[in-house]
Amino acid sequence: MNAGDGPHSYVQNSSYQRGVLDVAKPVIEEEIATKLDIKNLPNRFCIADFGCSTGHNSFPAIQIITEAINQKYKSPKITSENLEFSVFFNDVITNDFDTLFRSLPPNIHYHAAAVPGDFHGRLLPEYSLHFAYSSWSLQWLTAVPEAVADSGSPAWNKGKILYSRDRKEVCDAYLDQFEKDIELFLESRAVEMVSGGLMALSVPAVPDFWNPESEYTIPSDVNLLGSCLLDMARKGRFNEAKVDSFNLPYYFPTPEQLKTILNKNQSFTIERLEILNNPGKHTLTTINARAAFFRAVHERLITDHFGSEIIDELFELYMNKLAASPVFVHPDNDKSTVILAVLKRKHN
Amino acid sequence: MNAGDGPHSYVQNSSYQRGVLDVAKPVIEEEIATKLDIKNLPNRFCIADFGCSTGHNSFPAIQIITEAINQKYKSPKITSENLEFSVFFNDVITNDFDTLFRSLPPNIHYHAAAVPGDFHGRLLPEYSLHFAYSSWSLQWLTAVPEAVADSGSPAWNKGKILYSRDRKEVCDAYLDQFEKDIELFLESRAVEMVSGGLMALSVPAVPDFWNPESEYTIPSDVNLLGSCLLDMARKGRFNEAKVDSFNLPYYFPTPEQLKTILNKNQSFTIERLEILNNPGKHTLTTINARAAFFRAVHERLITDHFGSEIIDELFELYMNKLAASPVFVHPDNDKSTVILAVLKRKHN
Repeated sequence: MNAGDGPHSYVQNSSYQRGVLDVAKPVIEEEIATKLDIKNLPNRFCIADFGCSTGHNSFPAIQIITEAINQKYKSPKITSENLEFSVFFNDVITNDFDTLFRSLPPNIHYHAAAVPGDFHGRLLPEYSLHFAYSSWSLQWLTAVPEAVADSGSPAWNKGKILYSRDRKEVCDAYLDQFEKDIELFLESRAVEMVSGGLMALSVPAVPDFWNPESEYTIPSDVNLLGSCLLDMARKGRFNEAKVDSFNLPYYFPTPEQLKTILNKNQSFTIERLEILNNPGKHTLTTINARAAFFRAVHERLITDHFGSEIIDELFELYMNKLAASPVFVHPDNDKSTVILAVLKRKHN
Repeated sequence: MNAGDGPHSYVQNSSYQRGVLDVAKPVIEEEIATKLDIKNLPNRFCIADFGCSTGHNSFPAIQIITEAINQKYKSPKITSENLEFSVFFNDVITNDFDTLFRSLPPNIHYHAAAVPGDFHGRLLPEYSLHFAYSSWSLQWLTAVPEAVADSGSPAWNKGKILYSRDRKEVCDAYLDQFEKDIELFLESRAVEMVSGGLMALSVPAVPDFWNPESEYTIPSDVNLLGSCLLDMARKGRFNEAKVDSFNLPYYFPTPEQLKTILNKNQSFTIERLEILNNPGKHTLTTINARAAFFRAVHERLITDHFGSEIIDELFELYMNKLAASPVFVHPDNDKSTVILAVLKRKHN
């Protein structure tokens, strides 16, 4: 993600993810009210956001969660006079935590801490976490599957920068990696969470069925960006092999795929699995806004591989292609979805 | 503190503070072995460093503390198989935590988190902290005492940038502020710490008696730097009133003063109070090294007030004055000390 708060920053270009939260809010509130089931309510209630970035979408989520928990324990049957919240903001070690800290809302009613590190491993003490949250983060893979960058493999992803439906071996390699990574995430959280604790995950996804003639999803939009890189290679800006060796490290599952993976884990039960109908779409109505959103997310990955001198031309080309395409020009044709899964840590 | 790791950074110029730790190590180890007295050893042992800066002196301190605790609980009488450490690195919200995170030693045996905020207030949940550490930080005041910047007050500190022994009213105003701030620190920690938990504080100090004809302390050295600012004002670089209105927000107590303040607090007992004989002095043997150390600590405060264009000339002048002074030229004449206080949270 682009750091800071300049015009190309993630901060200024993440309204899409914020739209997801607006739709997720009543679901999270209801699940906390009815399913959160902590025996011996502690003085210290711990919440963690895995993949918080600079916090701008995390702070309102934490507010929703803390208010719902306060509401639940206001019940006259349970006293929560001394209930204090500790909130752990997690992201990778290179995340811009300084911007997060400087953006903390005034008068927050919790103790804020940052926990740097890869959420596919252990980050918090055993049995210490009561509510886990992760939004728009679990699609990131620990690595690009090796086979897709291997010219000797049937899964070699020549000429593309992400899997696409017409290449089954590539899709399978990405899905395998996604499954392994989700399992690592769940195994670590299983150790950290207390019995009866809840986890709310919002994961960008694609539908089980959609029509590529008249519709698209974010991964197909990303491959349109990839076709611009290929065009630039063919114009001689860089070698075509540079595109072959560039693959983005994320995967958008279908609801069926995610459900199958979550069901395999023995430590959690799926309490709810909602398919949100692309709730952030209305926030990206212009071609400029869509390009800015894509740039904020991808700029570092692209410039690390291709150099920073290509980036303006690339996004110029991308905007032209969007504008010229009968399918991609209309945000309404975007059939991407978001899956909101609420899991409960089983009682041991 | 200067951020990053460039030639003027705090990282590159804090060997003085590291020297303090080398001397404090056996004291901390002994106190943990003999005085730490936690009933019902938890799975999760929490340590916090208040005033960690970018962590370079904090990481070795945390290593000493965790090793001593592991050593204590290795005793066959107590099982500590599942003992996990959570370490909270605290500093002000503008601290360079990103450098801290990127500098975390590999293979640390604890869960690291950053907690931003003023340590004169609450930062952690109630009864959650087992060991508190703070080194070379408690001298920082929450604010310059108002009277010293007030031209109508008998404590007006005209022409100086820090208290000095020849101005009793100024010294008293600084000491009052120091006492209030230490009390706020202790009150917050009293709520956060568990009974029987320990706190190790190293505080830069001055002796009760020393001879200004042949000796100096860090505060008098700082006033030498202040005299350079006055010289520059007189050369017309800026208005003399700019020096009058600039006062540094820290205070170095005498051992008697600190002991009196610590004894007033009802929540802690003083287990040990050692006067370390200026253990960092040997790390700053050249005039260049001393100037670089002072610059790393003071640059931001000075440039915020006087502008960044004066800083090179100021430290050039300061080095010339150091070199020309029969007293200040010799680091051996520095009679500054460090007080190492170990406090225990009383059992309620």
